[in-house]
Amino acid sequence: MSEVVKKPVKITETILRDAHQSLIATRMTTEQMLPIVDKMDKIGYHAVECWGGATFDASLRFLKEDPWERLRKLRDGFKNTKLQMLFRGQNILGYRHYADDVVEYFVQKSIANGIDIIRIFDCLNDIRNLECAVKAAVKEKGHAQVALSYTLGEAYTLDYWMDIAKRIEDMGAHSICIKDMAGLLVPAKATELVQALKSATSLPIDLHTHYTSGVASMTYMKAVEAGCDIIDTAMSPLAMGTSQPATEVMVEAFKDTPYDTGLDLNKLSEIADYFTPIREEALKSGLLNPKVLGVNVKTLMYQVPGGMLSNLLSQLKDQGAEDKYREVLEEVPRVRKDFGEPPLVTPSSQIVGTQAVLNVLMGERYKVATKESKALLRGEYGQTVKPMNPDVIKKCIGDEKRITCRPADLIENELDKIEAEMSQWKEQDEDVLSYALFPQVAVDFFKYREAQKSKVDPAVADTDNKAYPV
Amino acid sequence: MSEVVKKPVKITETILRDAHQSLIATRMTTEQMLPIVDKMDKIGYHAVECWGGATFDASLRFLKEDPWERLRKLRDGFKNTKLQMLFRGQNILGYRHYADDVVEYFVQKSIANGIDIIRIFDCLNDIRNLECAVKAAVKEKGHAQVALSYTLGEAYTLDYWMDIAKRIEDMGAHSICIKDMAGLLVPAKATELVQALKSATSLPIDLHTHYTSGVASMTYMKAVEAGCDIIDTAMSPLAMGTSQPATEVMVEAFKDTPYDTGLDLNKLSEIADYFTPIREEALKSGLLNPKVLGVNVKTLMYQVPGGMLSNLLSQLKDQGAEDKYREVLEEVPRVRKDFGEPPLVTPSSQIVGTQAVLNVLMGERYKVATKESKALLRGEYGQTVKPMNPDVIKKCIGDEKRITCRPADLIENELDKIEAEMSQWKEQDEDVLSYALFPQVAVDFFKYREAQKSKVDPAVADTDNKAYPV
Ligand SMILES: [Co+2]
Ligand SMILES: [Co+2]
Repeated sequence: MSEVVKKPVKITETILRDAHQSLIATRMTTEQMLPIVDKMDKIGYHAVECWGGATFDASLRFLKEDPWERLRKLRDGFKNTKLQMLFRGQNILGYRHYADDVVEYFVQKSIANGIDIIRIFDCLNDIRNLECAVKAAVKEKGHAQVALSYTLGEAYTLDYWMDIAKRIEDMGAHSICIKDMAGLLVPAKATELVQALKSATSLPIDLHTHYTSGVASMTYMKAVEAGCDIIDTAMSPLAMGTSQPATEVMVEAFKDTPYDTGLDLNKLSEIADYFTPIREEALKSGLLNPKVLGVNVKTLMYQVPGGMLSNLLSQLKDQGAEDKYREVLEEVPRVRKDFGEPPLVTPSSQIVGTQAVLNVLMGERYKVATKESKALLRGEYGQTVKPMNPDVIKKCIGDEKRITCRPADLIENELDKIEAEMSQWKEQDEDVLSYALFPQVAVDFFKYREAQKSKVDPAVADTDNKAYPV
Repeated sequence: MSEVVKKPVKITETILRDAHQSLIATRMTTEQMLPIVDKMDKIGYHAVECWGGATFDASLRFLKEDPWERLRKLRDGFKNTKLQMLFRGQNILGYRHYADDVVEYFVQKSIANGIDIIRIFDCLNDIRNLECAVKAAVKEKGHAQVALSYTLGEAYTLDYWMDIAKRIEDMGAHSICIKDMAGLLVPAKATELVQALKSATSLPIDLHTHYTSGVASMTYMKAVEAGCDIIDTAMSPLAMGTSQPATEVMVEAFKDTPYDTGLDLNKLSEIADYFTPIREEALKSGLLNPKVLGVNVKTLMYQVPGGMLSNLLSQLKDQGAEDKYREVLEEVPRVRKDFGEPPLVTPSSQIVGTQAVLNVLMGERYKVATKESKALLRGEYGQTVKPMNPDVIKKCIGDEKRITCRPADLIENELDKIEAEMSQWKEQDEDVLSYALFPQVAVDFFKYREAQKSKVDPAVADTDNKAYPV
């Protein structure tokens, strides 16, 4: 018998970032993470995703934790495992475009505090919005991974993905991630897409998906058979539903095949045992809603993320217009087309969704356009894959100036100004970046931190509830 | 390009039987089923499993419904779709071996009342226990499907499965089901097993599994690629966890492949919308415990069904001996070996599990043997795949007589006797069979039925709670 070529698939563990962000509102604390870090470090994961995304905001805002301190503690514990963060291109982890000097400084500090792999994406797949972060990561000797926001639509042909993959390779990125935040990638399409990307570039391919529509584990199987190098999974207590496929399950599924991960189920099981009470507690308290654990095939029918569907419904309920749900669902793809067919991911999903609701409720399309729709139409988020509808541009922003350059080209360096604004709170360099991203939330946290230290006024600093009544 | 050969996979829908049995304690009522039957009938399912298994007992015992009446109503609604039931060989739907005349009469009445496909299995895969039911189904012009209880172990080689498949074909069965009640069949093994069965017989192969260990959808994918003809799925509101993979998900996963089911996602979605409130209500009331919706990879580690693991733990808790859990888990495969390596499915899973607990707690193996262990050792359940341990036989039953014949050969025809016993309650022929299987429960139901009709004493017949205080 001919020797079967072994090609172990690598596993990136997401339980410390995407899994708890997807299932329990990003509420896992550093204290909950640290006791299990040593065991996780001995598994042999390709990487552990543990920072960035919504964790930064949630740490400061809800947990009253310094995210930088969390990163240093995780780095201290993970002696043999690469740490990965999620980074939203020129938005970093915030909600606007930042100047290049802030982006560069954030990358530098992330790597200095312990990040190995920076996964960088943009909601429009406008690679100009990725360039600054990628170059900074390369300069700091980090691993720069570019994540393509996966979506469906006329513009998103295999040629499109192959072309963008080549441009990413040329940019100097070290790997490519297919980021399927909505769980739209079905198994047969995964085969085609992975094969196409492997033929277009020599970069390792990582596949990231969510179980929302129910096909995720099959999609991983097909992707790996087609040559995918890395898959993102979450330990079973926080897997499936709107999170990733379960780590142990994928390990067992590939066991004794050419793609055998080599990871030890017994060791993984001890880690699962650690997280199981956290799952059960979250179910009991309601933090983990069993609804997000089910399958939502409507995401495949309407090709929109599950979260967007529930947002639309709740917007309509607020207006007493639930009967318009189907009409709005039909309006969403039309608005998306008018807006140049962007992927539907934060923030484009909210912009398209809200505009679709307005178009239906007003009884006239684009009678009212939101501030964000106007900004998108002016080009302020970057370039969309297809041209926008000129009639819609005209109706929404009239003759206002539109930009075609990289949005950040119009933003002057701002680090010095930001540092000057917040200098009274600064205890470490990184505080400047916390403030840059979330000024109000960061200041609240700085005040809380100070109160904790002095403990001068226990009536003001309510440490038990981790709430500081400012 | 060469034409791809189309081979649509067929779908057996389980939401009216296994799905609610697995997730909500078999509590779906006929009233909950009937409004959606017409839509389900138009889907194009290969079959709808809707009767047998635990539904018969649960209808009589908890729902105070006549199971035969349910079957007739379903038959009335499903004008174009085959109806399937699950039938436990010589146990029928009950907990002991019955005489052949009862088995034959039950098969006859099941088919007369509307069943098309009878899925027949035995917990030891002793095909002598299947023969009577298979022959009766063939005689009544029903479709006789034999289900092999899938398990792992030394004895269960591909040769074993191929040999038993041939014997089933020779017996006159019309199709074979691989019944993986514990979710032990991993994708790569499904490929091997299905290929082996397809090479051994020309019968259609149906795969039935549960999502318990998390691999089920991938296992279906691999099985179908290997030639599996039919897969069992459940509509998404009662899918996954300890139930089957979701129907809509598998339909989408195979879409635009050679295995495309051709089923319409939009129509399926309307059915899902009907069952979603039933799921939500069950979550709210606690009938559906979110625990059974998660992944339990321990079933793969210990190769025992998930339900057995929780039973063992609760038996130990009752004895204040939770610390012995691991020891018991290690004793289970040893007891199983002593007992001839049976599959672990009702009732063999309970027999092996309870004996393992006793062996550990007593501090001496087989110091005490349960009544059921002794019966198994005497051959009263049938023949095991491997010989039993002679030392264990000696220690447990000494020189008591063991049987090697088909257990039912020792049971005289009993239908007349049973009918005589219950004649005062008989309103339809089928009542005799209800009484044969569950004498006490059936009598309680007959009394309830009578009280409902006369409504003479509302204080005794509490119709709202469907409880009759006898
Ligand atoms: Co994600
Ligand atoms: Co089953």
